[in-house]
Amino acid sequence: MTETLKAVVLRERGRIEIDDVPAPGAPGPGEVRIRMHTVGICGSDVHYYTEGRVGPFVVEAPMILGHEGSGTVLEVGDGVGHLAPGDRVCMEPGIPDPRSRAAREGIYNVDPAVRFWATPPVDGCLVEEVLHPAEYVFKLPEGLSYAEGALIEPFAVGMQAATQARLRPGDVAAVVGCGTIGIVTALAARAGGASRVYVSDVAPEKLALVEGLAGIVPVDASAEDLGERVRRDTDGWGPQAVFEASGAAGAYRGLWELPAPGGTVVLVGIPAGPVPLDVAAAQTRALRVESVFRYANVYRQAIDLAAGATVDLSRLVTATYALDDAVAAFERGAEGRPTDTKIQIRV
Amino acid sequence: MTETLKAVVLRERGRIEIDDVPAPGAPGPGEVRIRMHTVGICGSDVHYYTEGRVGPFVVEAPMILGHEGSGTVLEVGDGVGHLAPGDRVCMEPGIPDPRSRAAREGIYNVDPAVRFWATPPVDGCLVEEVLHPAEYVFKLPEGLSYAEGALIEPFAVGMQAATQARLRPGDVAAVVGCGTIGIVTALAARAGGASRVYVSDVAPEKLALVEGLAGIVPVDASAEDLGERVRRDTDGWGPQAVFEASGAAGAYRGLWELPAPGGTVVLVGIPAGPVPLDVAAAQTRALRVESVFRYANVYRQAIDLAAGATVDLSRLVTATYALDDAVAAFERGAEGRPTDTKIQIRV
Amino acid sequence: MTETLKAVVLRERGRIEIDDVPAPGAPGPGEVRIRMHTVGICGSDVHYYTEGRVGPFVVEAPMILGHEGSGTVLEVGDGVGHLAPGDRVCMEPGIPDPRSRAAREGIYNVDPAVRFWATPPVDGCLVEEVLHPAEYVFKLPEGLSYAEGALIEPFAVGMQAATQARLRPGDVAAVVGCGTIGIVTALAARAGGASRVYVSDVAPEKLALVEGLAGIVPVDASAEDLGERVRRDTDGWGPQAVFEASGAAGAYRGLWELPAPGGTVVLVGIPAGPVPLDVAAAQTRALRVESVFRYANVYRQAIDLAAGATVDLSRLVTATYALDDAVAAFERGAEGRPTDTKIQIRV
Amino acid sequence: MTETLKAVVLRERGRIEIDDVPAPGAPGPGEVRIRMHTVGICGSDVHYYTEGRVGPFVVEAPMILGHEGSGTVLEVGDGVGHLAPGDRVCMEPGIPDPRSRAAREGIYNVDPAVRFWATPPVDGCLVEEVLHPAEYVFKLPEGLSYAEGALIEPFAVGMQAATQARLRPGDVAAVVGCGTIGIVTALAARAGGASRVYVSDVAPEKLALVEGLAGIVPVDASAEDLGERVRRDTDGWGPQAVFEASGAAGAYRGLWELPAPGGTVVLVGIPAGPVPLDVAAAQTRALRVESVFRYANVYRQAIDLAAGATVDLSRLVTATYALDDAVAAFERGAEGRPTDTKIQIRV
Repeated sequence: MTETLKAVVLRERGRIEIDDVPAPGAPGPGEVRIRMHTVGICGSDVHYYTEGRVGPFVVEAPMILGHEGSGTVLEVGDGVGHLAPGDRVCMEPGIPDPRSRAAREGIYNVDPAVRFWATPPVDGCLVEEVLHPAEYVFKLPEGLSYAEGALIEPFAVGMQAATQARLRPGDVAAVVGCGTIGIVTALAARAGGASRVYVSDVAPEKLALVEGLAGIVPVDASAEDLGERVRRDTDGWGPQAVFEASGAAGAYRGLWELPAPGGTVVLVGIPAGPVPLDVAAAQTRALRVESVFRYANVYRQAIDLAAGATVDLSRLVTATYALDDAVAAFERGAEGRPTDTKIQIRV
Repeated sequence: MTETLKAVVLRERGRIEIDDVPAPGAPGPGEVRIRMHTVGICGSDVHYYTEGRVGPFVVEAPMILGHEGSGTVLEVGDGVGHLAPGDRVCMEPGIPDPRSRAAREGIYNVDPAVRFWATPPVDGCLVEEVLHPAEYVFKLPEGLSYAEGALIEPFAVGMQAATQARLRPGDVAAVVGCGTIGIVTALAARAGGASRVYVSDVAPEKLALVEGLAGIVPVDASAEDLGERVRRDTDGWGPQAVFEASGAAGAYRGLWELPAPGGTVVLVGIPAGPVPLDVAAAQTRALRVESVFRYANVYRQAIDLAAGATVDLSRLVTATYALDDAVAAFERGAEGRPTDTKIQIRV
Repeated sequence: MTETLKAVVLRERGRIEIDDVPAPGAPGPGEVRIRMHTVGICGSDVHYYTEGRVGPFVVEAPMILGHEGSGTVLEVGDGVGHLAPGDRVCMEPGIPDPRSRAAREGIYNVDPAVRFWATPPVDGCLVEEVLHPAEYVFKLPEGLSYAEGALIEPFAVGMQAATQARLRPGDVAAVVGCGTIGIVTALAARAGGASRVYVSDVAPEKLALVEGLAGIVPVDASAEDLGERVRRDTDGWGPQAVFEASGAAGAYRGLWELPAPGGTVVLVGIPAGPVPLDVAAAQTRALRVESVFRYANVYRQAIDLAAGATVDLSRLVTATYALDDAVAAFERGAEGRPTDTKIQIRV
Repeated sequence: MTETLKAVVLRERGRIEIDDVPAPGAPGPGEVRIRMHTVGICGSDVHYYTEGRVGPFVVEAPMILGHEGSGTVLEVGDGVGHLAPGDRVCMEPGIPDPRSRAAREGIYNVDPAVRFWATPPVDGCLVEEVLHPAEYVFKLPEGLSYAEGALIEPFAVGMQAATQARLRPGDVAAVVGCGTIGIVTALAARAGGASRVYVSDVAPEKLALVEGLAGIVPVDASAEDLGERVRRDTDGWGPQAVFEASGAAGAYRGLWELPAPGGTVVLVGIPAGPVPLDVAAAQTRALRVESVFRYANVYRQAIDLAAGATVDLSRLVTATYALDDAVAAFERGAEGRPTDTKIQIRV
């Protein structure tokens, strides 16, 4: 075991360094030691870098970034049965208090005590090695690459959204926003039972990434109204499920008139402040609204779908940087190029 | 059969008259002719009277008012098996197109083609006799009075709200607003499985009506914060279901922080315009939001509960007017006295 | 309009004839007149032929057979907006009383008053023309053939099963029995959200039909235990949903130990008599059991999925007979060759 | 702290002794030490006594009996915030592995690794003191006695059944069997939202216990058919939920024809072997079947309802014995007198 490890550390707002950090030591009971291989950069990582905070979470001390990771098992602790050294794995980045009320109810994602990688003051996984509880470490099937393994985390957000939508087989869905979250939501909704998923964006270059995917219908919102389009294709009925994945305040204006009667709005995007809710419009359709916070109990399903023929996550990777080039990777992330989807770092 | 019947007619905005209208004639197949007995005045009736419109529905021709009715069966048409002359009954006021897609899906309340009593241009039931489809006419059990029968309609709104909340037995609920809709929602939630229902209002005189009811906890919102109160009583967890029954824009500000993690907000009140939705707050709790539009398939259950020991609707009746005093009844309704709950007319 | 039409009539048990029957006349309001094109033969059609009855339904007078049909619209009645002459269509064969309690609750499939094609004494659709209520007539998209249109009916049974299973995206499913119903259930479960569907049968020649389908894993039950196989592939957990599609009494013996904890058994097959239910085994896993009766509100979704890339119904057609060869088609159906899946008649 | 404690120990099949056992010592982190006050005798305790086993669980070494307990907190371990010495409490007797897959999914009752009081080889709570994880220890509100606190455990089974039934407010329910489990299920269904609960038994003396309870309708199955009775009272529709709480093989014969179309059968009773399932009858009604295994996440709700006006558990207590008379208490339990409901021991 190495004594120190290289890590991507956010020293303070605006300053990232490749630092040496202490190695985590041997895994305790139920723990696994993992050699990190690939870590994706999330919008929240970039936000911590540029703003020093995300909502109520403020960076007040140096913190290792990154929570979208895959790697290889180096060592397992006592009582770990389903993993062995050499296994290729990916990890759920949030660890709840398993004895909390939320965890006992099966909604551990909303446990207030959850510890989540790269959420101050908890260190992330942009480091050569991590220790992790075995129940949140998942084997990657042969067909999945490390890059895809590191994409299971954002895909899991889409999976959670599709799960909460409670799609019936063959339902028609619509996704507002074709960024990373919009795309993974569309993929999850499609593989999760929708017959067709309309994805709209005002930036046509973003729609290019889903062009040609079976069952995905790109809608250029600058030229065509999403609601009109879906109603035209569905005898005027509309989509059973609408996923808001843009987080743009303007998107909420017509949102409540989009779904079919008895339909669902799933809130995946995170707008900066309060947005307008048209209660009367929602009531006229008896809409159900679901709000998504990370994910719980969807990782296995996400991996199984990503390993299958319907979902191909690899096309989401725009660029891969070496660990030593992590600052450049974050700089590029901060640029927010419209044609960039996911930037990953090879640890 | 009489040739003409007395009816309470809204001639135009601000002018109600007791008019003679043509008798409806004999019931067709599947229809029932009913002698109306008691009709409650709803906020929407008052609103048509004072404003000439409710949202998109505009009074452009004289219209009989009233949709909360009970009466006695006079005559049944061919094929009506479950009703006979002399039966005491109450009626669902909305008749969908039974062959519409919404109706086939069991959500006939959101059928755009629904014809609803006293919603322009459809006449209401403040008239001596009506014809009605038998499947929307329900027998009143012996223990229920005509006054209670006429209250099944508003109670059904509360029942729909409690049904959409999908309460688990023993859940803790909270209702914001102690007007008629707040009270029927609290009664439905309590009888529908909640162990305790907290009801808050800024007007203490409104809370008096639910004082002393088993399982109902009045909270004076001018003196105590509803959320703090429920959390204090639930080890900090909060209510599983929160019913917004005030329709007051201000009520939506803290609404998204009220429910327990994994909890539900049910939108029963109808605010005049868009209200603020705090998406991030809702997501942190993974809230589900349900919006209520009238009701579907709850009338029998509403009648069964109202006939039982847990729900007593009769206490909701503030005053009863004779048909000839209908104008005075509407004038009083328009006053909006805080101590008035339901005003009924004896047809 | 022709005065008489050719039809496939079951005169009595064991005797089928091609008869002339009266033409149905012009469509009434809300009705559609359809020129039938293709009709599939269902096991129940064969059973009426060979046994003269299916359960409580006894053939006591000559009856036109067939309920799996597609065709072309010839004429529409008043008030039919979504269809026009020339439209290629398929039809739901069961017409409920739209005013019944079951229909109002959205579960019109269990309306006791439903009239279903080729269920005594109701005539079926193996005839040149039929009249049908417009709301149960569905347009076929361009990509779907008449043969596939006639397969929507059995596929709808699988869709109903997959819908009642309430699959979450990415769940693992298993289907017991690889006959027509087993296959359509597997296709619906897969397209409806399952990541993998294991299909088992004791007859390897039946499994050949699903060989090579993405996400479908054939299991030869004569050589391998279905439960052991799925548990081996799922870290010992088992499938979240198990569909019983064989109707074979022996299949119920180990059935209750197959699903994962908290999983579901969906009863699609119809065994001839009572089968053993191991309550304690079901309880240990807190299983939910769903029972499927035809379908309600799934036809549009079925058509949408069949028109997509995931589901290919055309491979289910084993042979197509001319109308004049209908007797031979039924004889072959009665043979029950293990390699036969669906036999259709070109009307 | 005492060095040894008195306990009710099953030495071997047929032999119970009051033994001295070692005191459990101080509570560890997250644990609570409790002075037991009242413990009810369950059918399983009696069965271990008379048969030496319950299903696969065999008594192979001396074991303390009892799992229905209430008591007083003596001492709390580190990190226990919601409890303090002197608190009156009751306890969930089953402790899952909080990191297991079932526990993470919120269905910890079906975790194969669960350790449950008085299930070999795990000791029960018929002992003066126990240690217990704090998250499974619940404070009793002022209005609840220790006797009622010890009844929360069987009531929780009824609560789990009522919860899995997913009753809508005002639904009509029926319970087959009026033993302890039948009664607690009826109470939970009634308080959990049913407007009326019909309870049937062939032994009229058992029905006496529910006589006069609001919303509970006793049906003497030796004189009247349960299904006919409910259908007569519900316009021929039947109960939405039927709870099988007898475990008698004969009860399953007509069970599948009892519920209303679209209704539910909840399996609470545990028959000794396989029972007949009439698949075709279940399918005709599209029934859902739920199977109940203990309970998860219902204790707080059970306590809240038991503390309210609707549920009175105290009437279930037939007799209370002193700890030194435990053998007599078990002898009486083994007699199975039809008028006995719950026998408790004052520890």
